Amino acid sequence: MSQIVQQSNHPLFLGIDGGGSKCKVVLSDANGQLLGEGLSGPANPVRGLDVAVASILEATEQALQKAGLPSDDKARLYVGAGLAGVNIPEYFQRVSTWRHPFKALFVTTDLHVACLGAHQGQDGAVMIAGTGSCGLASVAGRLLEIGGYGFPHSDQASGAWLGLRLVQEVLQAKDGLAPQTMLGELLGESLGQSSALAIASHFLHASPTEFAKFAPLVFHAAKAGDAFAQRLLEEAAAALNQMAERLLAFEPPSLALLGGVAEQLKPYLAASVQQKITPVQQAPELGAVFFAKQKMHKVHQQQ
Amino acid sequence: MSQIVQQSNHPLFLGIDGGGSKCKVVLSDANGQLLGEGLSGPANPVRGLDVAVASILEATEQALQKAGLPSDDKARLYVGAGLAGVNIPEYFQRVSTWRHPFKALFVTTDLHVACLGAHQGQDGAVMIAGTGSCGLASVAGRLLEIGGYGFPHSDQASGAWLGLRLVQEVLQAKDGLAPQTMLGELLGESLGQSSALAIASHFLHASPTEFAKFAPLVFHAAKAGDAFAQRLLEEAAAALNQMAERLLAFEPPSLALLGGVAEQLKPYLAASVQQKITPVQQAPELGAVFFAKQKMHKVHQQQ
Repeated sequence: MSQIVQQSNHPLFLGIDGGGSKCKVVLSDANGQLLGEGLSGPANPVRGLDVAVASILEATEQALQKAGLPSDDKARLYVGAGLAGVNIPEYFQRVSTWRHPFKALFVTTDLHVACLGAHQGQDGAVMIAGTGSCGLASVAGRLLEIGGYGFPHSDQASGAWLGLRLVQEVLQAKDGLAPQTMLGELLGESLGQSSALAIASHFLHASPTEFAKFAPLVFHAAKAGDAFAQRLLEEAAAALNQMAERLLAFEPPSLALLGGVAEQLKPYLAASVQQKITPVQQAPELGAVFFAKQKMHKVHQQQ
Repeated sequence: MSQIVQQSNHPLFLGIDGGGSKCKVVLSDANGQLLGEGLSGPANPVRGLDVAVASILEATEQALQKAGLPSDDKARLYVGAGLAGVNIPEYFQRVSTWRHPFKALFVTTDLHVACLGAHQGQDGAVMIAGTGSCGLASVAGRLLEIGGYGFPHSDQASGAWLGLRLVQEVLQAKDGLAPQTMLGELLGESLGQSSALAIASHFLHASPTEFAKFAPLVFHAAKAGDAFAQRLLEEAAAALNQMAERLLAFEPPSLALLGGVAEQLKPYLAASVQQKITPVQQAPELGAVFFAKQKMHKVHQQQ
């Protein structure tokens, strides 16, 4: 490790990408040199602030340890945190009440840091198709956010949504209200139970993450030629197409697509949208470092 | 009160209709003479067995009191209970563990007692369109059940479903992904807040009952000529049409339609389905009395 990092007056940056299933952090110095990283559990405050805080602290300790820095150096960190759910004011407020151990904490959405990462801190737009789905364009300091309002009342291009539609259709087929397709067999095998009541029971009070776990069955069936599974993917892709159209109207220089079901949905998107999609430059947790630096820069300008 | 009821060897029947928002009971003698009734809170064991038990006991006490009978006479009662959620084996099991204070307790679904009530204990079919939606045909001792698997993975002809579709569409319109309609204004007025994030926040973790509360806005907008609201009602009606077709294939002598949104959805049903619908003869809690009597009869036959 460079001597400069060990100097306690040298600024250190921590970037956090906190989602519904995992929390990833990176530690870097002012020059962008990566010093360490960490990975822990859920960090979405909607599922509980205690859990989110525990995940953030755990991943931070890992990153400091990998960098060969003491735990007390938390107090030196300028932290950018992109957290799922904080687009909802109630949850942003809750996070703001956290008496964190850092030098400074700047909070924004996971979507925003994903966009900053994807375009290396420059203007651009992103669409996320993961457990949830949402989109953001950042152009000349103005942000346009689309979707991400939660499940089941939003997120129609997400893994959770695909899982929900899968379960709905399998139950309808079990009742003789829709044709039996390969999806019923796959879901039955996956759960180890195939009666409608056993399936219904499994998904009673199921979280979006639980529904999203079964999205791969839809991709599997679609690849094997199941027409109904293909229709579900076309539905999700249509929601992404609509979102892309709105984001592109904001005139971002580029548009990235990321998230757990993004790659598999891409072939179902309209050709005009596929052509606009550019590769992701850097991960969301690195976007969170850009965010912390931008915020620091503003604070210094205002002083 | 007749002397015969006061004789402790004279059988008394209690019928229970236990749903997600309320519990209705009736007390009757062996000749079908009504002696008392009671009304209390939620009795759906899916939302907690303790709550369901408390509601059942509260309504039972009311009915005994109105009949001028002491609380101890609970031990004389042959009880038929139609409870929402017990179609799912896990919840049926839970109710079975209840060490109830009655002479005998026979448990079935709220749907089954609704059907027995609607057709005075005779063969027939029912469709329920309330907070949830489901259907049942009972013909020559055979039962066909459709739907009722829970929200959001089932119940597409229900108030909860209409509320969910309303919220989805309003949020999409707020994002510029769907046309603005009267529904957005109505929902904003009703919540006292109209931003997409405030709406999303309200419905995060919302119960089916909470979504169902807003179904009246869809009926209101449809009556006022809102084309989108009309389309949502057509969607729900299509789900009921499909259900009716399946039930009628079972050849029940008649088909009844009940539940909180049933009357308002009826005009949207296919003419062929509307023509088949016959009036409900008696309330579900009276159907539960028929159920207790049928079960008693079988027990006596087996002895």
